[in-house]
Amino acid sequence: MKIKMGVAKSGIKPSGDYDILVLTFKPSVYSLVLTQNSLAAAPVVYDREVAEKTDRISAVVVNSGNANAATGKSGLNNAEKMAQLVKNSLNLEENSVLVFSTGVIGVQLPMDRVEKGIKEACRNLTDLDLKLASRAISTTDSFEKFYQTEGELKGRRFTVKGIAKGAGMIHPNMATMLAYIFTDVSIEKKLLDRVVGETAERTFNSIDVDGCESTNDSFLVVATGESGVEITEDNISVFRDKLFEVALHLAKMIVKDGEGATKLIEIQVHSAKDEKEAKKIGEAIALSNLFKTAMFGNDPNWGRILSAVGQLHIPVDFSQVKLYIGEYLIYDGEPVEYDRNGAVEYLKNSEEVVVKLYMNRGKANWSYYTCDLTYKYVEINAEYTT
Amino acid sequence: MKIKMGVAKSGIKPSGDYDILVLTFKPSVYSLVLTQNSLAAAPVVYDREVAEKTDRISAVVVNSGNANAATGKSGLNNAEKMAQLVKNSLNLEENSVLVFSTGVIGVQLPMDRVEKGIKEACRNLTDLDLKLASRAISTTDSFEKFYQTEGELKGRRFTVKGIAKGAGMIHPNMATMLAYIFTDVSIEKKLLDRVVGETAERTFNSIDVDGCESTNDSFLVVATGESGVEITEDNISVFRDKLFEVALHLAKMIVKDGEGATKLIEIQVHSAKDEKEAKKIGEAIALSNLFKTAMFGNDPNWGRILSAVGQLHIPVDFSQVKLYIGEYLIYDGEPVEYDRNGAVEYLKNSEEVVVKLYMNRGKANWSYYTCDLTYKYVEINAEYTT
Repeated sequence: MKIKMGVAKSGIKPSGDYDILVLTFKPSVYSLVLTQNSLAAAPVVYDREVAEKTDRISAVVVNSGNANAATGKSGLNNAEKMAQLVKNSLNLEENSVLVFSTGVIGVQLPMDRVEKGIKEACRNLTDLDLKLASRAISTTDSFEKFYQTEGELKGRRFTVKGIAKGAGMIHPNMATMLAYIFTDVSIEKKLLDRVVGETAERTFNSIDVDGCESTNDSFLVVATGESGVEITEDNISVFRDKLFEVALHLAKMIVKDGEGATKLIEIQVHSAKDEKEAKKIGEAIALSNLFKTAMFGNDPNWGRILSAVGQLHIPVDFSQVKLYIGEYLIYDGEPVEYDRNGAVEYLKNSEEVVVKLYMNRGKANWSYYTCDLTYKYVEINAEYTT
Repeated sequence: MKIKMGVAKSGIKPSGDYDILVLTFKPSVYSLVLTQNSLAAAPVVYDREVAEKTDRISAVVVNSGNANAATGKSGLNNAEKMAQLVKNSLNLEENSVLVFSTGVIGVQLPMDRVEKGIKEACRNLTDLDLKLASRAISTTDSFEKFYQTEGELKGRRFTVKGIAKGAGMIHPNMATMLAYIFTDVSIEKKLLDRVVGETAERTFNSIDVDGCESTNDSFLVVATGESGVEITEDNISVFRDKLFEVALHLAKMIVKDGEGATKLIEIQVHSAKDEKEAKKIGEAIALSNLFKTAMFGNDPNWGRILSAVGQLHIPVDFSQVKLYIGEYLIYDGEPVEYDRNGAVEYLKNSEEVVVKLYMNRGKANWSYYTCDLTYKYVEINAEYTT
């Protein structure tokens, strides 16, 4: 897969680190999932317009350190200008460049620096280096997030690789989840859109750090077709599994890097009535501050878990519900005797905690991922300015 | 208004303080708002049944220290037994006693102690003492919550007085919001139900400490009619205003006593499309951990406020939105220059902070009340067991 990249240190970030990333490739099928937040950032508005006009793109430009959000008409012009700069520098077609930003909101981009940075990045293209690309789009991330895998179909190999950034919504107003996945399979846009939508639901849309959705969240998948592997309805599962593997890995890395987090928590909801209900139950638990602080305190506090479910006002029969923390059965239609010390030790010693809830209302399952709520979270979010 | 009370230290609470409260009065019209949490506690289930059978009650019994929630069939029997004990001790009619519990969940009530306590309370009735009554129903509250006011209609005076408890959902599993308001007006049950429902919406249903709803939340209003003041459709506003005053005062006391809170925050939403939208916007801001930590850090972080609104996916035109923190205009369709130091000082020096959001989409207003998210909150909720 021939993906070229260019990076630059344009001086948007106070740290002085890389803050411009340009990725370019042959005109390719793509699928784009953007934030639903109605305070959408300028690049999100711009990309929506591009997505209506074209189903092939050739490049992506990202700046980190400034979200270009809540920046009005000037912000929109600047997003468009970023696309134009890449298009002109690389001699690309109209409407073939998507734009992304992440960082401070409510501040106009320093366009002189951005222009210099984009031109520099476009002049110095090299082969894609996932780690460096990840670094160039990160803001408050404490580690780079990238992953790749391979698949095989009828003896032909294909690749799926991606980068992401995000660690909760932070300094100075909020951060953002950005994820880019590239594959060399050949696939129709309609089919790609469907499989990307399904994948996003179970990965990037099933993670929570603090319940706050950003103005800039974006997930892009590009399929260049260079492997010659053709994906159709009939063999979609081969590709879907690999795409899911990469997306889930990146999504879990974001939760692990959650602000102040000490634990990744997987909330498995089993035997719910339908998928929508299963996801809602997982989300309700993931969003409960009482649950999140209990996890920080290594406290197998089942009352907080069941109460979060009750708060959804779904007519659940709690006498049918089973709850496990790790392998410890904690609630079985009623409170049960269990090895409390064992469960506490499990919570203390696990970087990845699994909570399993059996609803006994149907056949749908869902996993939701979250992290614990700690002193450090409060410190990061309360103390950076004053 | 002749309301008699009895209290007892039955030994349910580890502290050994009062944990049984019995209130009794002449058969009276009442209105009851109960938790919607589907993990409803046994007394909630019991009271729902009573409420279907009768529109007059003569007594209330509350125990603190044990929520009688997630306790199955035995729990239900125990709730019924509590009502029976009061009925027999005071010689009351069938179905004239409501039962409430608050405290630990998942543990059966020690019925021998409860029985002794209820009998003792019923033997020692005195005139209602709001402060002592409030103490007897409190769990982790750090101060007693009570309030009273008077009104006048055609030269006749009437009284509205109440007690409440609640301070977030806490040790060892969750606490509960309980509120009891007594008035001596005469009013039809149907009209009382309506005005109590409206009042609950704008008071106890518009406060948040940590977004977590309890299994036991209950709000009861009793109208004894002893003042001779008759409330009808035509003069309802005289009574409604006084009821609102008492309920709002009690509700704000609960937020002030929020776990670890240093500030009460009133989020005023103005000119929303309709009341439902106005309340949803206030609630979305109140529930945002990023907003709550910013308030703790005295940070006038408008991005977090607008982003919480955007997360509702309502088609808000943010170029029409105005945002004030105190008297400081922070956002006026776009970021504006403002006296940041002044706003920070306002946040630092105010025990009651007001955030005002003008949506310019309609005529509906709503106030939502919350508190900040602090280290202390994490400490209280993470550290009590391990």
